[in-house]
Amino acid sequence: STQPNFQPAAKIFAPYSIYKGKAALSADPLLPKFTKLESGDYKVERRGVIMLTFWPAIGERKYDWDKRQKFALSATEVGSLINLGAKDSCEFFHDPSMLSSNAGQVRKSLSIKAHADGSGYFVSLSVVNNVLHSNDRFVVPVTAAEFAVMRTAFSFALPHIMGWDHTVSKLPIHCNEGSYIRSNGGS
Amino acid sequence: STQPNFQPAAKIFAPYSIYKGKAALSADPLLPKFTKLESGDYKVERRGVIMLTFWPAIGERKYDWDKRQKFALSATEVGSLINLGAKDSCEFFHDPSMLSSNAGQVRKSLSIKAHADGSGYFVSLSVVNNVLHSNDRFVVPVTAAEFAVMRTAFSFALPHIMGWDHTVSKLPIHCNEGSYIRSNGGS
Amino acid sequence: STQPNFQPAAKIFAPYSIYKGKAALSADPLLPKFTKLESGDYKVERRGVIMLTFWPAIGERKYDWDKRQKFALSATEVGSLINLGAKDSCEFFHDPSMLSSNAGQVRKSLSIKAHADGSGYFVSLSVVNNVLHSNDRFVVPVTAAEFAVMRTAFSFALPHIMGWDHTVSKLPIHCNEGSYIRSNGGS
Amino acid sequence: STQPNFQPAAKIFAPYSIYKGKAALSADPLLPKFTKLESGDYKVERRGVIMLTFWPAIGERKYDWDKRQKFALSATEVGSLINLGAKDSCEFFHDPSMLSSNAGQVRKSLSIKAHADGSGYFVSLSVVNNVLHSNDRFVVPVTAAEFAVMRTAFSFALPHIMGWDHTVSKLPIHCNEGSYIRSNGGS
Repeated sequence: STQPNFQPAAKIFAPYSIYKGKAALSADPLLPKFTKLESGDYKVERRGVIMLTFWPAIGERKYDWDKRQKFALSATEVGSLINLGAKDSCEFFHDPSMLSSNAGQVRKSLSIKAHADGSGYFVSLSVVNNVLHSNDRFVVPVTAAEFAVMRTAFSFALPHIMGWDHTVSKLPIHCNEGSYIRSNGGS
Repeated sequence: STQPNFQPAAKIFAPYSIYKGKAALSADPLLPKFTKLESGDYKVERRGVIMLTFWPAIGERKYDWDKRQKFALSATEVGSLINLGAKDSCEFFHDPSMLSSNAGQVRKSLSIKAHADGSGYFVSLSVVNNVLHSNDRFVVPVTAAEFAVMRTAFSFALPHIMGWDHTVSKLPIHCNEGSYIRSNGGS
Repeated sequence: STQPNFQPAAKIFAPYSIYKGKAALSADPLLPKFTKLESGDYKVERRGVIMLTFWPAIGERKYDWDKRQKFALSATEVGSLINLGAKDSCEFFHDPSMLSSNAGQVRKSLSIKAHADGSGYFVSLSVVNNVLHSNDRFVVPVTAAEFAVMRTAFSFALPHIMGWDHTVSKLPIHCNEGSYIRSNGGS
Repeated sequence: STQPNFQPAAKIFAPYSIYKGKAALSADPLLPKFTKLESGDYKVERRGVIMLTFWPAIGERKYDWDKRQKFALSATEVGSLINLGAKDSCEFFHDPSMLSSNAGQVRKSLSIKAHADGSGYFVSLSVVNNVLHSNDRFVVPVTAAEFAVMRTAFSFALPHIMGWDHTVSKLPIHCNEGSYIRSNGGS
């Protein structure tokens, strides 16, 4: 693991949140996890994601955070979203327990559907939980301006959730040695 | 507050300014403010903005900075602006005292209106102040090239005014410990 | 050379990999190499590339890494790729021994061909080796979403493989001197 | 001035160069210069530019660097260039001695003219020097792929030549104080 043993890095919360009549939606990048190899090098152990969180309105400007549901967009799903034309739609399906013995018990689907006039999108999350016998559905209308924020911020975050900010990094911090230029040219 | 107690960071002024016949317009990013949580983590307390400043011409190449008026573009308004097609228009309304007892006393509106031939935009600010009985109006014609600078610079600045440069940051500065890779994977 | 003599910087592996039925494809940025000039300044000695690696499937979800072939995209080839419209195609030819006595012995060609309906691309690598009398061919269908990831990540990486992240860098790391602003204005 | 007094930062040369039959063209970002204010803050004293350099071919793959001519693209001219459609053209005129007593003695014009089929551009520099009675003209055909590299690299560099990388910077390097988050929220 790459967790430093002297002091964990502080987390920083800066979600992009959209509050609408029936539900709220927020987006947050989560960075990849790296493993240190025996060679001293690092490789991505788990890709990062853009985490979408939905939670329902329970009154005028009141929302219930305890009823939130999450959907983690992979790099390729982010690619699909930032590539979406003004009249396009897309849908993603996740099973949080895929490949385990609990597969199929929870099914999540995220749908992004353009308004016919190109003025925005309906972003919907549906979570069917066959264990809890629950069926949650959230719909958040997102304006073209809000979607432009998401597209720009997600495009910015994409190389970071892939770990490419590290592979192109020019700054090995050897502070007491003065500045030099890093090169990964041998690889 | 996150203000370090030993020495405030220097401010750096690098506005993008456009001087035209009747008025000048400049744009500047302002970063978000963070609060330190009891956990030691941070969250955005107040979002950043792109601050637009207008000030009038009072002669040939002379402008009166004392008569300036400001309009703070939110992340979503920046999204609207960078999403604007060559023939599109948009308008934003602000009340600096919204939700206070002074609500409605000052009304600001910013309008961006495309030239019919797609060669640029009229960017106008109107400020009606019912307390001072004043009514200021500024119009700055912005060429397509100047607008492309704004679109590119605002797209660059958007993740920073949202605070996402922090959430994806790979550099916790622990200089005397050597370099390591930060991961926010637990969040 | 710019290799620091006390401790080589760790390498970080974060390829973007696409696994399909017949073959897998991964992409990785490689940074440029710099030479230190007598003046103490640096110049790019060898440009960076985006390295594409193809390797064949040898069964269900099994791939043979030992049979991989590589194709190094130059800055201009990356420009061609990120500029590709939804219905466009392009092809690049490389001779790894160009200008040496072995010229012509190995010929590589990379082809990117849009699906007729704009839903993605076929990315193919062909390697003809006249010494080994081998002829390898890999075809990986890439969806529009996967290609959007590549376009965004390659656009992000392009200034880095060119070395422009260094020419615009604002951070000479002189940690014990406090912060100051770097200017390359004299150049 | 912001020049550190202990050791000037090393310069880094990483031009994007295009060699064609009649001439070569290279592009390089030059950063802005800052002035320190009495308050301890900084402001941009002189904007940065993208410097274009042209030099003529004098034989097969031989070019004469001594006969080079330069053209410094301002932020707004960069905006014009990155905004150029596949069939668009633009032209800029510079007088290096504008507003001085030598005004009009040297006239430079840069023209970017799209090929009729959208496959690239002719980039031409003309320098008429009435003092030296010289008249230099360079024409470099630039492919769509090469122009895509320029557009992407110039878009990357634009916020830096404007100084916006500093205004949004999150890293005041106070290495021995641990990490904290910079906020320019007071401005």
